[in-house]
Amino acid sequence: MKRNVIVGQSGGPTSAINSSLAGVYTTAKERGAKKVYGMRHGIQGLLNGDYIDLGEQIKNDLDVELLRRTPAAFLGSCRFKLPEIHEDREVYDKIFEILNELDIEAFIYIGGNDSMDTIKKLSDYGLLTGSDIKFVGCPKTIDNDLALTDHTPGYGSAAKYIGTSIKEVIRDAASQEYPRGIATVVEVMGRDAGWLTGAGVLAEGEDCDGPDALYLPEVPFDIDAFLKKVKKELDKKGYTVVAVSEGIRTKDGQYVCEMGSEHAFVDAFGHKQLTGTANYLCAYLAEKIGCKTRSIELSTLQRAASHLASRIDILEAARIGGASIKAADEGSTGVMVVFERESDDPYQCHTAVKDVHKIANEERLVPRKWINKEGTYVTDEFKTYVKPLIQGDVWPVMVGGIPRHLYMK
Amino acid sequence: MKRNVIVGQSGGPTSAINSSLAGVYTTAKERGAKKVYGMRHGIQGLLNGDYIDLGEQIKNDLDVELLRRTPAAFLGSCRFKLPEIHEDREVYDKIFEILNELDIEAFIYIGGNDSMDTIKKLSDYGLLTGSDIKFVGCPKTIDNDLALTDHTPGYGSAAKYIGTSIKEVIRDAASQEYPRGIATVVEVMGRDAGWLTGAGVLAEGEDCDGPDALYLPEVPFDIDAFLKKVKKELDKKGYTVVAVSEGIRTKDGQYVCEMGSEHAFVDAFGHKQLTGTANYLCAYLAEKIGCKTRSIELSTLQRAASHLASRIDILEAARIGGASIKAADEGSTGVMVVFERESDDPYQCHTAVKDVHKIANEERLVPRKWINKEGTYVTDEFKTYVKPLIQGDVWPVMVGGIPRHLYMK
Repeated sequence: MKRNVIVGQSGGPTSAINSSLAGVYTTAKERGAKKVYGMRHGIQGLLNGDYIDLGEQIKNDLDVELLRRTPAAFLGSCRFKLPEIHEDREVYDKIFEILNELDIEAFIYIGGNDSMDTIKKLSDYGLLTGSDIKFVGCPKTIDNDLALTDHTPGYGSAAKYIGTSIKEVIRDAASQEYPRGIATVVEVMGRDAGWLTGAGVLAEGEDCDGPDALYLPEVPFDIDAFLKKVKKELDKKGYTVVAVSEGIRTKDGQYVCEMGSEHAFVDAFGHKQLTGTANYLCAYLAEKIGCKTRSIELSTLQRAASHLASRIDILEAARIGGASIKAADEGSTGVMVVFERESDDPYQCHTAVKDVHKIANEERLVPRKWINKEGTYVTDEFKTYVKPLIQGDVWPVMVGGIPRHLYMK
Repeated sequence: MKRNVIVGQSGGPTSAINSSLAGVYTTAKERGAKKVYGMRHGIQGLLNGDYIDLGEQIKNDLDVELLRRTPAAFLGSCRFKLPEIHEDREVYDKIFEILNELDIEAFIYIGGNDSMDTIKKLSDYGLLTGSDIKFVGCPKTIDNDLALTDHTPGYGSAAKYIGTSIKEVIRDAASQEYPRGIATVVEVMGRDAGWLTGAGVLAEGEDCDGPDALYLPEVPFDIDAFLKKVKKELDKKGYTVVAVSEGIRTKDGQYVCEMGSEHAFVDAFGHKQLTGTANYLCAYLAEKIGCKTRSIELSTLQRAASHLASRIDILEAARIGGASIKAADEGSTGVMVVFERESDDPYQCHTAVKDVHKIANEERLVPRKWINKEGTYVTDEFKTYVKPLIQGDVWPVMVGGIPRHLYMK
């Protein structure tokens, strides 16, 4: 590389997104880039001229290590969709003006579906206008729903957190089953894709039977069958722990989290409140069985818990960040870097480059055959798939008993 | 010791309660106890003759290490209050019959306020009837609200988890403040005592300003002042993260979590639903400010997350378990073992023995002067107090990427 690089982060943060940023930075420097700029809050910040010189933030190897262990988007994130090119060329002219002023050679965007839409449009516009800037997408999402890649950085760490937390919740629930315990419903992120909820299977081991059921959004949710299942487990063991995707829907397509709303969860101000899927199901169980219930939403914690990151995930995130620089340096534009798995055991993955037009706005769901017939658990294929992605640990740099992060100075 | 020991666990589990169990077991064996029995589900299980020989579960040093790292009550817990002695002597006769049959010399009960009530009553009955069995309480509660002890095992690990998680949530919120972000309310356990919520201060560091406010139940909650505070932070930084105890109340004594109920949060079945303190406050903020909000309940996770345990806490829990055996072996009964702090820095604590009659059913709150005048944050005294309790780490024994626990065989 001979000129400068600019990199941005977009969409929901993860525990690994900053490791990709570190990979972009170090690889760009190794390949000769003069400066590596960071967009503050992605393309939205860039449009306001809001960017920094990353070299002023990352001064030494310790900074790189801290960055790799820092959750959430170091540069700040955004959720901003570019207009279609034919709708508003001015926005594009403005972006390219800024990029040319900064003497940018490669534009790397770390993000999910929507971010790949940004790469698609910017690279299209670059080709239309004869720009030589290379636009490359670097995948990131805990949802693991990007097309054409084996998996996405961020997913492994979230899966590890979910498996661990559900196992700890099971231990807690099991210790209180006397004489009759609690039905616990754990709500996991994932509106359309059940990759995260499926990771509940990781709680299984010689020392733990795992959750009693996993309800993924890929399969219509049958509330009667759910009720029967919970009753059965309560009768058998005195307690039960199940996990549900926030996005589960009935066969009519109705979101379970909206069922509460319809039945009039009205808040203090007379507004209908979305209760959350687990909250609704707990209210339902309490009514139908009369059992004690507990709903646990893993919420932001599951994407921000870098204290329990997967080593494989953090290393791969850095590696794919580096690979996106390499792709740009080798002349690719309008592409995203992906993982292709060679084998499960021993786990082997290599990176490849794919046309972003085939990725943007697509969604990769859990294959139906990786979910059991009843739609209540994942199969051994799912386990084989997810297990390599959570291996190894990256313990935080602890200062005074609390993880230390890199922060914007 | 020449005869046998029996030990039970009671009340809400913690990350450290099994480390105390390990301390009881190893110290009893070192001191010559023949057998160490474990009550299944505390005194309630014992009444049904439900106990085990702990030596059949703990076979080697690895088992001891695993037990120390296993969250929740290994023996199973219960919430069972013994009747007053004059109300029902039969229950007591039955318990003592079982204890005598098992040739018990020392009865150790690991628990909080209610468990100390059990120790008080059993030791009283023992004295009344001339029994030579020693009854000793071993403190345990994440709430840290037991009288006469500097702190309780379990609190340090919960505090470390809360400080870490709130810091991670702040990083997540801060990365999305563009152009206007989210008001996040984190709900922490603690109905009357704010020790856990106060631990949110641990998120503070060179790399993090910490939460914008901490609302403890020791101070009446002023919802107007809360609204102003949130508005101010949103205007200043674009986002805010505050933490509240589940038990905060207005100056009229009304629980905030019940305000939603009064204003008619009605569930799908026409029942009033307790919405949770954070949920209610988020609905309130959304209505009054029109901002996006996120409520996060740390829920069971904060007491079960042994993957982020404090080393000091786990070591002290084992130590106080051992001290309770020593107290019994030296002839004490009707007592609880406590921690007395000698100095903050370097941190020094020793164990002592206190009359359980002065502990049972008492509650130790955060001193008013450890909370600022406005009731919105804790002071430096609080920080000095809590910091030593979260130092050091006990990383889990990881197997296949997930923490391994000891389980009942």
